[in-house]
This record gives sequence, C-alpha cells and structure tokens, in this order.
Amino acid sequence: MPAYVVGHKVPDSDSICSAIALSYLKTTIGEPTVPARLGELSPETLFILDKFGFEQPELKLSYAGEEVYIVDHSDKIQGPDDLDEATVLGIIDHHKLGDITTSTPLECWIRPVGCTNTIIKMMYDFHGVEIPKDIAGAMMCAILSDTVIFKSPTTTTADIKCVEALAEIAGIEDAQALGMEMFKVKSAVEGTPARDLVLRDFKDFNMNGNTVGIGQLEVIDLSMLDAMKADLEADIAKLKAEGERHTVILLLTDIMKEGSELLVASDDASIVEKAYETSLTDNKVWLDGVLSRKKQVVPPLQDAFA
Amino acid sequence: MPAYVVGHKVPDSDSICSAIALSYLKTTIGEPTVPARLGELSPETLFILDKFGFEQPELKLSYAGEEVYIVDHSDKIQGPDDLDEATVLGIIDHHKLGDITTSTPLECWIRPVGCTNTIIKMMYDFHGVEIPKDIAGAMMCAILSDTVIFKSPTTTTADIKCVEALAEIAGIEDAQALGMEMFKVKSAVEGTPARDLVLRDFKDFNMNGNTVGIGQLEVIDLSMLDAMKADLEADIAKLKAEGERHTVILLLTDIMKEGSELLVASDDASIVEKAYETSLTDNKVWLDGVLSRKKQVVPPLQDAFA
Repeated sequence: MPAYVVGHKVPDSDSICSAIALSYLKTTIGEPTVPARLGELSPETLFILDKFGFEQPELKLSYAGEEVYIVDHSDKIQGPDDLDEATVLGIIDHHKLGDITTSTPLECWIRPVGCTNTIIKMMYDFHGVEIPKDIAGAMMCAILSDTVIFKSPTTTTADIKCVEALAEIAGIEDAQALGMEMFKVKSAVEGTPARDLVLRDFKDFNMNGNTVGIGQLEVIDLSMLDAMKADLEADIAKLKAEGERHTVILLLTDIMKEGSELLVASDDASIVEKAYETSLTDNKVWLDGVLSRKKQVVPPLQDAFA
Repeated sequence: MPAYVVGHKVPDSDSICSAIALSYLKTTIGEPTVPARLGELSPETLFILDKFGFEQPELKLSYAGEEVYIVDHSDKIQGPDDLDEATVLGIIDHHKLGDITTSTPLECWIRPVGCTNTIIKMMYDFHGVEIPKDIAGAMMCAILSDTVIFKSPTTTTADIKCVEALAEIAGIEDAQALGMEMFKVKSAVEGTPARDLVLRDFKDFNMNGNTVGIGQLEVIDLSMLDAMKADLEADIAKLKAEGERHTVILLLTDIMKEGSELLVASDDASIVEKAYETSLTDNKVWLDGVLSRKKQVVPPLQDAFA
C-alpha cells in the first residue's frame, strides 16, 4: 500500500505542489507514495496544474490506518480529521510548530523559509534526485505564490535561489512574469460567490482554546474588491457563527500597494486592535506593509490571545 | 546575547554532545550560540568530555526571554520548565514528535535515526562546515552510546556511516573498542546510591494524561546489578509516589545478552503486561531483544495507555 502526502484543508498551491513533488521524490527513492488533497482547488492552483500538465491529486479526507506525510502545516486543526489514527511518517513545513504529535519517530524538515517547496528542493538535493521539468515548474510557481513574487517578508535568500534553480530546470526564462500571470488568475474574483472567496485560502487556528479563522485574498488591485466588500463582511460574520469561532479575519491583500485591509468579525475586536496596535473603523483597517498571514498576522494575534 | 542549545532533563551523552556540536556549528555560521545542560552528567558523559577535552556545558534551568535550540527531545515535560516563555529557534531530534509548539516559524531537523548527533553531522554537511577533531570524537561516542554500539534496533545505516566518517575525522582507529571502554565506565555501578542509578537516564512521558517515568541502566553484564536489585525496586516505588506518577519502569539492559529486565512500579501493572504481551512476576520480567526505550518500550506503552 502506498503512503500518502497531504497538505492542509482548503489547499493552496504550496500544499498541492509540495504533495506532488514529495510523492515523486519518495517514490523515486523506493517508497511508493501518492499525492492527495483535503478539498477543492483554487483557480490559481488549477492554472499551475494545467500549465505543467498535472491531474488534480486524489480527494481523500480519511487517513485512518494509512501512512502519511504531512506538508505545509503541523496544526491538527488544519490537517485530516482522523490523523490520530494514521501513522505520520514525516512533516515538511515552513510555519510555526503546531500540535501534531506522534507515537513513533518520524522525519521532519521544517525551516523558517517562504514556502514548503523550497524545503522539498533541499530534500531532492539531499537525496541526489533530479527534479523533472514539470515538477520543477509547479514547485517554482508555488514559491512565487507563497512569497507573493518575493514581496512577502517571509521571503528568504533560499526561496529566491530556489526559484532561480527551478526556473532553469523548468526552462522558464522570466519567472516573475509567470508569477504576475498567476496572480492575475488569482485576482479574477468577479462572479465568484462571497463564500468561495472567503474560503479560497482560509485557515483555522487554535489560539489559547479559541477557534480563530483567518482567510486571505491576494489581488493585484484592491479596488477590484470594492463592489463585493459588503458581501464579504456579511459572510465572515456568518462563518464565525457557523463554526463557533471567536474571531474570523479576512485579509484583502493588495500585492502591488503591498499592504492588507483586514475585515474583522469577532466576539471581542479589542483583541485584534491590541494585536496590531491599531483601531478598527466599521470592523475594518488598512495595515500598510502587511502581506504575510504567517509572519505578520498570526503571531501577534496568538500573543494577544495568550 | 547568544542563543542556547539545550537537551533534555537528566542529560545523557547525546544531549550534551549534540549541544556542544550544534553550538559550534551555529557559532561558525554566524549565530553566536552556547551549549547548556539541565542537570548533572553521568559517568559516561564525563568520560567523553574528559577524553576529548571539553568543559561541562553551563548548568542553566531557566530560559524565559532567551532564544534556544532544543536537542534530543520535543516533549515539553523533558525540556526546560519555562520553555513557553522562550523563543524556540529550532529542534534537532530523533524521537517521536512531542508536544512542544511555537508561535513563530522555526528550524526542525527530526529524523528516525539512532542518535541526534547523526542529524547534526547532516547539518554540518549541509552548511559545508568542517567538524573539529575533538567535536567529531564526542559526536561519535554519543552515537555509539545511543545505538548501544550498533546493537540497538534504532540503529540505521546513516548512524553506522556517520560513526565511520567521524572516527576518520577524529583519528580513532577502533571506534567499537572505544565504545566498549565507554560502556565499561557506564557499567561501574558499585557504590552508587540506588536513586542515582534510577535517575541516571530517566525520562518522564505524558501518556494520555498520566505521567509515566522510564529509566534505563545499560550494563555489560546484568549480574553486576544482582546485589542492588531490591534497592532499585524499592526506589522506583518511592519515585512513583514522589512524582505522582502512574507508573515507573526501570529497564536493566544487558548489552551483551541483548535484552532487558523490566522493574515495574505501577498503579495498574496490567497496562504494562498488555503493552508487552507478557506477565510480570514480582513486578519484574525479562524481555529478550529489548534494548531501545524509544523504539521498543515507549510506543507499545503509549498505545496501551491510549
């Protein structure tokens, strides 16, 4: 029986591309492994799979009795619901260390870099396995997505060098231009229901016992969202109630202006104001320079809840 | 301010040698880092430090406000008591994944190999840093200790190759002979109080809400312990009561016969019997082939408690 590689719920391009890249690597070194996903794919991820000729990984929600590699998260709440009944063989991630535990030794490659695929490139190098052209292209796009084409403060030298190396393998001359093309696909929000947009890149966190959901929409021009903002605000309030969440935040990120507007629905918005040392007006605030949920949004909020 | 590297409570040779080896590596690549320890050193570890000319790392119990690398464990109960108030920069370990969590991204090198120092050798290789002769010797001894000179089922090809490489760097011709010399030092138990022997290599585990302490004494001939066995049994019963533990187990490991006698003090010894599919006689049982706490003793017990 093969092992699985699976990323987080509401999969993003990094979760999907790292599942594809890691399963190829593991299979090549003699551990049959297949990629899987915990949900529907975003237009950006579908664009990447189409561009490099990949099928969607298998939709698989239950892992009881299976062996599994976890990518792009280490928080239980973001992973498969029955992960406790699976054997976790390894975790490859670039976030804070979450609450997944195991009863047997495992392999963890966790680094403070901009993207899981940057770490998977290190794994290919460690094992001396050549990266196929199409996989290199998908890995490269995932890094450009996660680092917002190197604008995000999560970007490290390792990510930039990795994109250079992968672009060469994939035969792509202008990686950043492909990145912009990808973000244009991501920005096409017209005609999409508010709920789909809110959930497009949404993660729940356990903050001192409270469930806090944080979504992010990255667009190349925030004014594209003006007509939908009221709908988005109404929807995060609904999502908060449905999931018994303490707080739901939606980041509307303008990747060209390099900042985010926060839409907030919370049982106690003063925690959010304290976290970011700001004041909300109509449950909204623009935070200049904030591009990264992981580095700029989650840690201060976690501290404010502690 | 330098960062610290610290291993687990009741430090063993792996915790100490990996703290020394990692702090040298980190300092060399531009991150000033010093080794520390959470407790007194065993005769085996003192033998290694003396042989290769190292001072004991600083005894440091509190890490609030400090930056710290954690080595050779990832369970909160085994680490510094105030770790939640420190910034964990990284974890290098070879055990099951424990319950340490962080609020910021970090570096984790966790591998299912026999010894943390085998992973630290990979880190030196990754960064292209030459291992000094004395550090290579200490790392090599730690691997020989943790793998019981390659007899433990935790031993991997990576550990064996690593010892070969380190022996060459350290200029040691017969690594296994040095390993035997080290285990003879470890076996010299005469005149040592029972409590010191019980705590020499002792770890607490949180098993489904119960505190379970497991100690291990490795000797080259179990009959050396015959005269002390009654004292050891009495002492683990006391230790159980003092720490409000559900169970205390002491493994008396005969590295030549390749097995362990378990001494058990428990609120419910049937859990222990179930875990190892055996029956205790006078709270004792010989388990043939059992050399590794991590691989052969902890996982079945954890499952039995679950």
